[in-house]
Amino acid sequence: MLKRVFGLPLQSTSRRIFSQVTFRSMSEQAITTPVATPAVADSAKPQHPKNGKSKKSKLQVSLKTPKGTKDWSDTDMVIREAIFDTLSNLFKRHGGQTIDTPVFELREILAGKYGEDSKLIYNLEDQGGELTSLRYDLTVPFARFVAMNNIQNIKRYHIAKVYRRDQPAMTKGRMREFYQCDFDVAGAYESMVPDAEMLDIVVEGLTSLGINDFKIKLNHRKILDGIFQVAGVSDEDVRKISSAVDKLDKSPWDVVKKEMVVEKGQTEETADKIGEYVKLNGSLREVYDALTKDATISANEKAAEGLKEMESLMTYTEAFGIDKYVSFDLSLARGLDYYTGLIYECVTSASAAPENAAELKKKSKSSEDASEYVGVGSIAAGGRYDNLVNMFAQASGKKSAQIPCVGISFGVERIFSLIKQRINSADIKPIYTQVFVMAFGGGKDWTGYLPERMKVAKQLWDAGIETEYVYKAKANPRKQFEAAEKAGAPLAVILGKEEFAEGKLRIKRLGPEFADDDGELVDANDFVQIVQQKLSEVHEDGINEVTRLIKGL
Amino acid sequence: MLKRVFGLPLQSTSRRIFSQVTFRSMSEQAITTPVATPAVADSAKPQHPKNGKSKKSKLQVSLKTPKGTKDWSDTDMVIREAIFDTLSNLFKRHGGQTIDTPVFELREILAGKYGEDSKLIYNLEDQGGELTSLRYDLTVPFARFVAMNNIQNIKRYHIAKVYRRDQPAMTKGRMREFYQCDFDVAGAYESMVPDAEMLDIVVEGLTSLGINDFKIKLNHRKILDGIFQVAGVSDEDVRKISSAVDKLDKSPWDVVKKEMVVEKGQTEETADKIGEYVKLNGSLREVYDALTKDATISANEKAAEGLKEMESLMTYTEAFGIDKYVSFDLSLARGLDYYTGLIYECVTSASAAPENAAELKKKSKSSEDASEYVGVGSIAAGGRYDNLVNMFAQASGKKSAQIPCVGISFGVERIFSLIKQRINSADIKPIYTQVFVMAFGGGKDWTGYLPERMKVAKQLWDAGIETEYVYKAKANPRKQFEAAEKAGAPLAVILGKEEFAEGKLRIKRLGPEFADDDGELVDANDFVQIVQQKLSEVHEDGINEVTRLIKGL
Repeated sequence: MLKRVFGLPLQSTSRRIFSQVTFRSMSEQAITTPVATPAVADSAKPQHPKNGKSKKSKLQVSLKTPKGTKDWSDTDMVIREAIFDTLSNLFKRHGGQTIDTPVFELREILAGKYGEDSKLIYNLEDQGGELTSLRYDLTVPFARFVAMNNIQNIKRYHIAKVYRRDQPAMTKGRMREFYQCDFDVAGAYESMVPDAEMLDIVVEGLTSLGINDFKIKLNHRKILDGIFQVAGVSDEDVRKISSAVDKLDKSPWDVVKKEMVVEKGQTEETADKIGEYVKLNGSLREVYDALTKDATISANEKAAEGLKEMESLMTYTEAFGIDKYVSFDLSLARGLDYYTGLIYECVTSASAAPENAAELKKKSKSSEDASEYVGVGSIAAGGRYDNLVNMFAQASGKKSAQIPCVGISFGVERIFSLIKQRINSADIKPIYTQVFVMAFGGGKDWTGYLPERMKVAKQLWDAGIETEYVYKAKANPRKQFEAAEKAGAPLAVILGKEEFAEGKLRIKRLGPEFADDDGELVDANDFVQIVQQKLSEVHEDGINEVTRLIKGL
Repeated sequence: MLKRVFGLPLQSTSRRIFSQVTFRSMSEQAITTPVATPAVADSAKPQHPKNGKSKKSKLQVSLKTPKGTKDWSDTDMVIREAIFDTLSNLFKRHGGQTIDTPVFELREILAGKYGEDSKLIYNLEDQGGELTSLRYDLTVPFARFVAMNNIQNIKRYHIAKVYRRDQPAMTKGRMREFYQCDFDVAGAYESMVPDAEMLDIVVEGLTSLGINDFKIKLNHRKILDGIFQVAGVSDEDVRKISSAVDKLDKSPWDVVKKEMVVEKGQTEETADKIGEYVKLNGSLREVYDALTKDATISANEKAAEGLKEMESLMTYTEAFGIDKYVSFDLSLARGLDYYTGLIYECVTSASAAPENAAELKKKSKSSEDASEYVGVGSIAAGGRYDNLVNMFAQASGKKSAQIPCVGISFGVERIFSLIKQRINSADIKPIYTQVFVMAFGGGKDWTGYLPERMKVAKQLWDAGIETEYVYKAKANPRKQFEAAEKAGAPLAVILGKEEFAEGKLRIKRLGPEFADDDGELVDANDFVQIVQQKLSEVHEDGINEVTRLIKGL
């Protein structure tokens, strides 16, 4: 049986693994070129009969999830769902509606949107149909959705998985499959008004998740472009210089400068000029003042546009009372190609890499888990992208339609890691069972009341009450109490051998403090109502443990 | 700009599409064999320079989702989320906890689990790492999870997308990417006890979704195997004969018989004998009685085992009061390899293909959408699979551990189609906005109170109230009322030019029946409390429209 199920597919799988290992470097260089192996030789060659045994062990199935992915279960799942709920409610509070797009898109939809990170896109195999890839973020699918449906304006949120073939750092929450929680506003509106609301959403979202020690670093692509122009970068080099600047959160200035000069062909002078500006950071007002006083910058058309917008933003962040969270940081560039205006990234003290990162990296044994020497990175990020929808509209031959967009994406796995650190007590259960139905009896004629327990449970289910019983014809009382305790049920409904025969059920509070309490004997005809009454008493006191954890109380 | 973004990737994409069209039939026959095309010829060949123009139009981006997938949005999303909520609550009621597994698994994990349907699995491209495939269902990943973590027992639910390269029938809810809502119980328990609860869960789930005209067809793999043995099918032919029987819901007996005799090498006599049995169906009791009275069947060891289990099942379905929904149908076989005991499939009258299906198929223009001539199929299905976890444990070299499992999967997109048909009024909104903040004023010195509206909205957000305002510095009253109406907000908070200057806000009910109501002028210091009070009055009356729809009220 086993041989039938695992034998054949595994043999062929393993053959592919071997050839793949051999050809790996080749296929990495030329991913789209299929590697041809002569089919005849493959089947004609002897299958190393002498090594049969050792080969068999290599044919075993690896019981694991693919690299950079993991299963979620137990209380982790409860916490993550509570985070999703908190963020969904946040987005709904701001007029958001939700959409769901396919996990893969036509490959051409994703092409050319992610700059140097495009190499991290997962492709689906060409199985005789369209060429498709797993989505890399939720923004490009959103822009495709808006363009495809000729939507003029929408506030949408989307909580879903995205995929990146990146180097995973599991314990810090950097995965190849991970959730993003996005809120985006599409539509032509007053300058910086939805943008300011995005920043407010970051503040509301994080504080409602008990995260208070964060900073929103922000910058403006037009100001950055103005700086590059002033420094002497040609228009076609702007994006690649921008992506060099983007590395400043991980690398020192010397390294970034070298990249600009040696790899990206800028003069020393240009690089130094850029270096002067990108060192600037402070409050919105401080950096705004410094730049407006700078005659070269304020004379640059692009930079001046950006500065005018930053002026409005100051008014709005003050109206929201969130200016204290904001830091204007000219070194922020964001890697993605599609941003056109305000960009932002939210970091906590836990986001930064440790001081001795390089040292830790050398010591680290595993190349898979970089958690020891890499920070969690940003926990929320986004920006304005005014041309993306239009690109899709034009490229598909539709009438050109400028639909400006601005959005924010919460990195929920990273936020999860921060919240997880707060757990002291393990009083969160993954199940919600309220009532455990038990039967006590004995003697030769004792049936165990299994169908009767089923009938009782069914009445509770029909009343919407979470109910379990042990799946055993005759279960001893200790086993039933243990199961009830494991489930965390606060209430037992007990079918006593004689009592139940007389139409009575016993309702008892569970837990050590009720050990001596025999409970209450009630009529089997109206026990459901009494159970409901008792449960409302149980839940009267105190705040839910999950809420307490999520809010950091 | 556009050229840079779309130009290059598209050119290479389009080249691959052309070569793929040519080789499609070949690659369909031998999916795992890469088709080698000489790399030199490809780049050396002229790229049809004369056809440059017409080629460019072919290079356009298709603004669509991949075949068999779709976007979900607007009220459809609201309905689908309400279905998920209903089913999550159902699963929690039965002691379920939820898990989340990656959307792709190592390819070897899926190998050999799906019989003839394995060809429908989506593979990810080999990009120099592990070989992976998109999950085909949630059952195999669950069994992998249980084996990997040495779990002895768990009741888990999982609501997530699965992937099948099937022929889509969009309007009937048959998609290539679709959600499954699964509940499974793993663990060694009293025979048929969790199995009976699965059937109860189907009944509870569907009735709580307002679906009442359904039948649960069930059968037992051991009884079916016994019938095959008695009819003279050899052990190694059992699974392929079973998959022929599985086609009886779509094909007449003649066709299935021909498949058994011509394609699958059975004698006429064997086929006819099978035919006699698989025609049997009726209540659990009727078919049980007929089979126990049949001396050949009851003498067969496997069948007798199955019959004994069916006897227990009768007691339990009667205890749950769900026997009226159950039909014992010997033609039910279920395609999947891994089932070992009870199997079931739930159908509604809408599940069946129309009588004139073949005729409709001929007339149909589109091969993509088979909705006109194909029924929705089963809306829930599942069964017992006692060996799957053990297969994983053994194949991975772990100590063998028999963890019997039984599960149910709800086909939520199909259920969605049924619920969608009920919509008469369009009174369901995709957003939940409760308050719209407006400003009325005029004159030369009128600012539009935009930062002031932001401040007011912020106070409402902080109180957890869904609030919007128009993203415009100065908006005229009509535009603001229109936006509020579109959002479906029941309440307006109005900043009058003079009133607000005096520290007052106006709170007004919205909707045609309040057209003449000027609302109430309140102190800006405690307006939030008054808004909360008014909202609780708004929601006092009546049941939520979404709940009404979902429950079919």
